[in-house]
Amino acid sequence: MRALALAATLLALAIPARAEPLSPQVLQTASELRDRALKGTIAHDFAEHLVLEVGARKAGTAQDKRAADWAVRELTKLGFDNVRAEIFDMPGWVRGAESARITAPFPHDIVISGLGGSVPTPKGGIEAEVVLFKTFDDLLAAPVGSLAGKIAFVTQPTIKDQDGAGYSATVRNRQQGAIEAARRGAIGYLVRSIGTHMTRVANTGSVRYAADVPRIPAAAVSPPDSVKIERLAARFGQPITLRLAMDHILPGTVQSRNIIADIRGSEKPNEYVIVSAHLDSWDTGTGALDDGAGMGIVTAAAKLIKDLPQRPKRSIRIIFFGAEEFGLLGARAYVARHKDRLGEYFVGSQADFGGDVAYGLQTRFHAPARAAIYAHMLRALAPLNIIPADNNAMGGPDMTPFRELGMPVFTVQQKGYDYFDIHHTPHDTVDKLDAKKLDQNVAVWAAVTWILANADVDLRPIPDPTAPRRLN
Amino acid sequence: MRALALAATLLALAIPARAEPLSPQVLQTASELRDRALKGTIAHDFAEHLVLEVGARKAGTAQDKRAADWAVRELTKLGFDNVRAEIFDMPGWVRGAESARITAPFPHDIVISGLGGSVPTPKGGIEAEVVLFKTFDDLLAAPVGSLAGKIAFVTQPTIKDQDGAGYSATVRNRQQGAIEAARRGAIGYLVRSIGTHMTRVANTGSVRYAADVPRIPAAAVSPPDSVKIERLAARFGQPITLRLAMDHILPGTVQSRNIIADIRGSEKPNEYVIVSAHLDSWDTGTGALDDGAGMGIVTAAAKLIKDLPQRPKRSIRIIFFGAEEFGLLGARAYVARHKDRLGEYFVGSQADFGGDVAYGLQTRFHAPARAAIYAHMLRALAPLNIIPADNNAMGGPDMTPFRELGMPVFTVQQKGYDYFDIHHTPHDTVDKLDAKKLDQNVAVWAAVTWILANADVDLRPIPDPTAPRRLN
Repeated sequence: MRALALAATLLALAIPARAEPLSPQVLQTASELRDRALKGTIAHDFAEHLVLEVGARKAGTAQDKRAADWAVRELTKLGFDNVRAEIFDMPGWVRGAESARITAPFPHDIVISGLGGSVPTPKGGIEAEVVLFKTFDDLLAAPVGSLAGKIAFVTQPTIKDQDGAGYSATVRNRQQGAIEAARRGAIGYLVRSIGTHMTRVANTGSVRYAADVPRIPAAAVSPPDSVKIERLAARFGQPITLRLAMDHILPGTVQSRNIIADIRGSEKPNEYVIVSAHLDSWDTGTGALDDGAGMGIVTAAAKLIKDLPQRPKRSIRIIFFGAEEFGLLGARAYVARHKDRLGEYFVGSQADFGGDVAYGLQTRFHAPARAAIYAHMLRALAPLNIIPADNNAMGGPDMTPFRELGMPVFTVQQKGYDYFDIHHTPHDTVDKLDAKKLDQNVAVWAAVTWILANADVDLRPIPDPTAPRRLN
Repeated sequence: MRALALAATLLALAIPARAEPLSPQVLQTASELRDRALKGTIAHDFAEHLVLEVGARKAGTAQDKRAADWAVRELTKLGFDNVRAEIFDMPGWVRGAESARITAPFPHDIVISGLGGSVPTPKGGIEAEVVLFKTFDDLLAAPVGSLAGKIAFVTQPTIKDQDGAGYSATVRNRQQGAIEAARRGAIGYLVRSIGTHMTRVANTGSVRYAADVPRIPAAAVSPPDSVKIERLAARFGQPITLRLAMDHILPGTVQSRNIIADIRGSEKPNEYVIVSAHLDSWDTGTGALDDGAGMGIVTAAAKLIKDLPQRPKRSIRIIFFGAEEFGLLGARAYVARHKDRLGEYFVGSQADFGGDVAYGLQTRFHAPARAAIYAHMLRALAPLNIIPADNNAMGGPDMTPFRELGMPVFTVQQKGYDYFDIHHTPHDTVDKLDAKKLDQNVAVWAAVTWILANADVDLRPIPDPTAPRRLN
């Protein structure tokens, strides 16, 4: 009986070593990386250093350049291979003075934030009646011409939730609203901040324009001021007029940069595992959670792997994308530049969801490949309280153009309940970084990255590569 | 046996009616007022109306005058007796443009709020090294002359708590800091916001100066920026320099107003029960919680009493004090003006702690009087979850000069855990007003006010009239 049990045990141990795509050694090292991360990593130090030395770093500005220089210097100091910046062109946008004031029925200054890329108002501002819409669908239902000479305002709140679905449900209000308002004749567009706080700051973020409608000035309103305007309208039943003045400058083409650093693989150096974040941040905060946290997490995970005695079989590439906030401009520039080689890229992901704890691991892998390795990965992550998730990973915003070309991706899901209290606001500051929570993320990233860099499996072709992307 | 029980019951009913200072009828009416309040009052409507029609109303400004006119109009509409404004003089203060920027070791714009009453900086601002103090005691420990040419900065956080003790522990950092810094040679004074949030706004509030030291410009720093400066100092170990520019104007003497409205008592019209709040608010928010909520609470309570078929024995006086935020200026003007009559005032209180639920009732009554009525009052308030509290009530900030002259006071304690996330910030806006919570407060105020306006008891002399006052 004991001999039989021993034989069964030996058999069980032997099978994975022979037949499984993940060797016990790979899984063992992944567990060691995980446990090492929990003892403390450079994630917080790295993110804090950037946020304190550079701070806000809007794409295409001198601050963006300072951040890029900082990143090249620090990644080089950390010993990564072939650290470099790749420059790309982008349309510049400089925030000017901005103000908004309700002028009737009673005067009130309100807090706004001009949306990134917004055209300025005419000199001296615009003053017009405000037309309120409770939802974006209500705006869409307004007839063409019905907003002539008016300012359109979508007052829909954004709900708090675990995974950002609340944000995804309302972000088009910010991104698409100026187009739809202008199509109906509006001369200005306001949107209740796409944020979940009730503080007196407005969430910035990018706005889009369409070629076939005028580009109208667009701004986000602080949630309390949005409620105030709704209450003014409900209580007094009189027209609300508002003066909006924004002196933004559109300086034409400017430059930004993607930052790249490698750990060269020992067996398949041309197959990359991409671990990415984005370098740029909005100017109103200092980019601590968005995306200093992500930069710290992926850099710390890669550093743990770099410090191992053995190299991974595949190469690991850190990318800090530039100009993510202006519409994934750095990611698109990277894809355009490296198009010929992307077919060899093994898998990628981006950390861009703040600094709270990780709780799930999504993938987008060829189903048989996922079946072969996912349970093993989850077992390695179990001590971190990572729960199973689906095979519909988006991989993070900057993975979009990669994924659309067929690259497998994964997403380390982070608790997002409080993220949109901070995201794109002035509150995104160094005090929001929590070293222990970042380390827990690093533990996940280090284990997953190591496993994928060494797995004997093919993750392609992926299901549904052009699935709806997470909006940024 | 049944006859005995009946006799005992009759005796029990009979004794209070004959010997107690509170008749069953008074307590019955108090309970009815309480229950009526819970069905809905004008508190939220009153506060919202003010906040939407007037908004910010810094003492001594045109907005303050608009608020005073609004209050006279609305109190008159509600049917109170003898509604009027009493004008008083005060030193004016106009906030100008204000900005602060760390200039070394790395440039960072930081968010500040000039303290109310602060002198401006010299034209173009001041730039100097910042000397950090973790606590106010550390500043006090610095030798005279040791801060020559420097900007002093006290970075002590304010803790959240139930009753505002955290605020009371740090508010001197804001009020007294400019004096103590200047005494040691400083040319500017910064204080971490006396607030419990971690948002990127700074809490304003008044600053004091002393005749024997120079008046130096003083500002509060947002909590995240305070942490940033501490981390910069700790991480890089280099001197931190900062440029502070504030263009405040000190226009000399201006006018503000106390607003008064009465319910004339049927038996003792010269004995007043004062139910008060303050009219003015800081300019950075809109004074919804501070003190629109208090105005709504006391007005709604008085209105419930006014609508009874019978009048109270004593008069009830609503007072909305002006210029509370600049150092109880309206309260002091009222006391100076009405000094000869204050000895007849029966009791007073102020609602000035936001809009969260009430949980306790403090008094400052002659001990035998308290012994005679307090248990009855608590029994009337029990359905509102009001718990017993001590006989050390302050009565609210504007009751200070009254209490110091011997007037009995009570305090309806409100949950203050979240209050200092909002207090004196731009976040103090209409969305923070919760009608149900205000109504629960009104229930307490109406019952207590009715009981005290009809009690056959003398609350004087009060214990320790000059006890340390709650700082505002």
